[in-house]
Order: sequence, then C-alpha cells, then structure tokens
Amino acid sequence: MPPLEQLTILAPGLLGGSVARAAHARAVAKRIVIWARRPETRLRLREQPWCNAVADTPAAAAQNASLVVIASPVDRIVPLAAEIAGVLPPLACVTDVGSVKGEISRHASKLIGRGAHFVGAHPMAGSEKTGWEHSSAELFERRTCFVTPLPDTDATAVDRVARFWSDLGAEVVTVDADKHDEIVAHISHLPQAIATTLCSFLAKKNPAWRNFAGGGLRDTTRIAGSDALIWRTIFEQNRDEVLRALQHFEDELHGFKAALANRDYVEIAARLERGKAYRDQFRPAP
Amino acid sequence: MPPLEQLTILAPGLLGGSVARAAHARAVAKRIVIWARRPETRLRLREQPWCNAVADTPAAAAQNASLVVIASPVDRIVPLAAEIAGVLPPLACVTDVGSVKGEISRHASKLIGRGAHFVGAHPMAGSEKTGWEHSSAELFERRTCFVTPLPDTDATAVDRVARFWSDLGAEVVTVDADKHDEIVAHISHLPQAIATTLCSFLAKKNPAWRNFAGGGLRDTTRIAGSDALIWRTIFEQNRDEVLRALQHFEDELHGFKAALANRDYVEIAARLERGKAYRDQFRPAP
Repeated sequence: MPPLEQLTILAPGLLGGSVARAAHARAVAKRIVIWARRPETRLRLREQPWCNAVADTPAAAAQNASLVVIASPVDRIVPLAAEIAGVLPPLACVTDVGSVKGEISRHASKLIGRGAHFVGAHPMAGSEKTGWEHSSAELFERRTCFVTPLPDTDATAVDRVARFWSDLGAEVVTVDADKHDEIVAHISHLPQAIATTLCSFLAKKNPAWRNFAGGGLRDTTRIAGSDALIWRTIFEQNRDEVLRALQHFEDELHGFKAALANRDYVEIAARLERGKAYRDQFRPAP
Repeated sequence: MPPLEQLTILAPGLLGGSVARAAHARAVAKRIVIWARRPETRLRLREQPWCNAVADTPAAAAQNASLVVIASPVDRIVPLAAEIAGVLPPLACVTDVGSVKGEISRHASKLIGRGAHFVGAHPMAGSEKTGWEHSSAELFERRTCFVTPLPDTDATAVDRVARFWSDLGAEVVTVDADKHDEIVAHISHLPQAIATTLCSFLAKKNPAWRNFAGGGLRDTTRIAGSDALIWRTIFEQNRDEVLRALQHFEDELHGFKAALANRDYVEIAARLERGKAYRDQFRPAP
C-alpha cells in the first residue's frame, strides 16, 4: 500500500506508542500526528523521532488524517470518536485498539457517520507494562490483530484498515465485532479472571508461600500483574460474554474436582491428556 | 561440607540428572553412581562425564552410598526404598525429589529403618520437559528445595540432607512433611489443575481460537503441557489437600463471578488490585 499521507494517533499508551514506532520504522505513513491528554506527555512526545507533530486537541490532530488510531482505554474510545467526528476528511478511516468491540463499534460507527468510516481493531499484543515509554516497533509482529467490522461497514474501509494493521506486521483476522467479543472472553478475559482469582485466593491463604513457588505459579499468574483499572473496564464492557465463559469454566473445573473426589484417576488422566494435547498445538511464541 | 564419598542416584529423570550434573560441577561428591531402569539408558549414562559408575540394580547402586537420591516419580519412591533398605551402610541418608511427602515419608522412613535415615525433599524446580537429557547443573540454583522431616526424624540426618541440597545451589526450606503437602497443593498442584482445566475447556469450545491468543493465554497455560502420567500420580497422592484447595479456589472464583453478575465493578476492581498486589511481590525470576 502507498504510505498514508497522515496517520493520527490519539491517546497513545503501550499500543498507540507501538503503532507510531512501527509505522515510522516501516514507512507506513508520511506524517505521524499525535494527541495525548496530558500536557507533559505532549511535551515529551515532541522529542520522539517517530512523531512529526503533536496536537493540543483530538480534533486538531484528526483534521487532515487519512487514518486515525484511537489508542485509549475502552471507556474513552466512544467519547474520542465523538470529539473528532466533525473534522474528519471524507473517506478517512478510524480504527482503535480496544479489547471489546461490539457496543463500541456500534456507537463509534454511528458517530463517525457516512463520509468517514469506523472499523474497529484489536491487536492481541501487549504486556503487563503500560505506557508509551514501553512501546516497541516490533510489538505487533506475528501477532494476531482482529479487525472487527459490523454487518454494514464499508468493505473498502475494512480492507484499508486490515492492510494498515498488516503493514505494521500483524496477522489480521477479520471477524464480526460480536463474535470477537465471544472469542476474547475465552482466550483473554477468562485467563485474566482466573489468574487474578488464583492470586487473590493465595494472598488470603498465605502470601509468604509465593516465595517457595517454581516457574509454574509464576507463569500461570503473570497477567495478574496487569493494570487493574484497564481490566475493570474490560470486564465491565464485556460482562455478558465473560459471565458465560466463567460459567462454562466453572462447570469444567467442577468436573475435575468431582473426578478427584471420586478417585476416578482415569478421568483425571484423560483431562490432563486433553489439556496437554491442546497446549502442545500452540504455535511457537513470536 | 567435605564431599560425600559416594552419591547414588536412582531413576534419574530431569531432576535426578540435574542432581548428578550439579553434584559433579560443584564437587559435592567424590563418586557418583547411578541406576536407571532401562538397560539402554544405563548404556548412555556410562558415557556421561558426571557419572562415575552405573549399577544394574538399585541395591548394587546403593551398597556403598553416603547419600542416596531417589529421583523416580512419586509412585516408585517407596518400592525403591524397599529395594535398597537392606544394603545401606549405617548412617547413610536417603532423600528423594517427590512432589508429595506425607505418606511417602512415613512409609520410606519405616522401611529404611534405624541405621540409615530417610529425609524427604522436594526441589521446586523443573520444566514441562522431562528426561535426564534435559537436565542441567544449574536447575536448582536459587530455587526453593523443601526438606520435609517427620516429627521423629534424626536431626543430624536432616542437617546433612539440607546441606546436600544447599550445596547443589538450592534455597532450603525445612518444613513438616504434611505441611509441605498443604503448601504445594496451593502453589503447584492447584495451578496445574487450573491450567489443565482451562485448556481442556478451550479445546472443547473451539481449539482454533488458540491461534489468536496473545502471551497471556500462552503463559497462563504453559504447565498444561506437562507430563500427564506424572501429574495423574501427584493428584492421586495428594488428593485430600488438592480437593481442599480446589474447593476454596472455586469459592473465590464464584465471588468474582457474582460481583460481575451484580455489576459490582468496585468489587471487581478490588479483586484485581488484590491479585496484582500479590503478584507484584513475587521475587524476581531466578
């Protein structure tokens, strides 16, 4: 794809900063314009080689954008879409990095209107570290990026946004916004709920025991160190799908416990084998 | 401690092989004698620089031992203790690497008798990879090794076994055998049950989704790739403690789900914060 004339990034954290670095490193855009909420962040962004200009408002940043990435936490995506809706050039595309897509896509699409297009996205990359200071030009490489149109989203806009993310190095998976929410409830939000719950339980039981743990507990609980506010909002936004996934996980765990209670070690072994077969098929880490 | 005259290792896998390599590298023993069940393994062990002699039977290997490490899976520890009990020199110490300690220690101590001493141990080191071919001289470095006496275990023998493990690089924690089983039910066996259950659930739901997952699911489920037979036996041996830990984890998870169902996001945030506070206090990875 020829480079974008102007890429605008709103509210860069780890993901938005990485979009800017990757776009700069891969010459995806001729010009990168960024807006950040805090004046002191704006000052520091001005000094970055991957930032051509810093704007004082979201609207000023979006004014001449070919493509806008709203990189804020999920609860700020729709308000930011509202702030820029009036100034977008015709045919501009707006995408985001939010972990939840259904409701947000419907609201944002309505706000962005007809001339420009909202096409949601969700790169499955990140870290328990937050902030643009930890961002990296390689963050998206060989990572899945969901692109999540609604049934009536303009097909050309979907293609442009999908191409943008693949130009940053991601492996794009295009999937309906509501289906996306079901998938991430299982492969991302459920593991977070489990890791958090294991930690909050062990904290209650005896926190000193963590010092004896091997690599197993360390890895199983790593994501419990993630930012609590970000995750509170994700659970709020994807409540129904997460509740369903939790219910089914509880049923599966109850089955394991029942087999153990009944001394049914053939069943325990079968579950261990099933889990191992599933885990062994993971593709190698990027 | 002056080096042991003879260190004997029975049934080396990842852990037993690592004991041999670490003892060799750190000059913990003048002579390392190994017995393995399979003749072809015995042939290959003869070629290893960290193995001075290979014996054809457990009794032959243990005959002149100052210290014996039974490195077999948990269900073979007591039978191997029975095989060597008659030939051990007076004052010889026998230890093991089993993940479960209470019942095994009581049986093995009774078999080993009075002249020699059984002092159980459990190094919290390992890998989802098994086999002595993957062993390493550094496996125990900065890792916890539980040393698990019974109330009537000889204090000098406990000291000698504790010193042995610390000479291999481990950080020794001496704790009653039954208390050990309660601790590892929480920090090792419960995480295994959870990782296995998450995988067996997702396998049922839609295995293709794993290809979209980020590092979170990958880390949370890593130990689900562990050997199923080894873990079947561990769950069998530590059934009661694991059942208790599972019950309390279920209660904690149910609390998370109830908060989400009730839209009590203050409670969700509090649990995320509690989990994060616990996880943030992990000591750095070795």
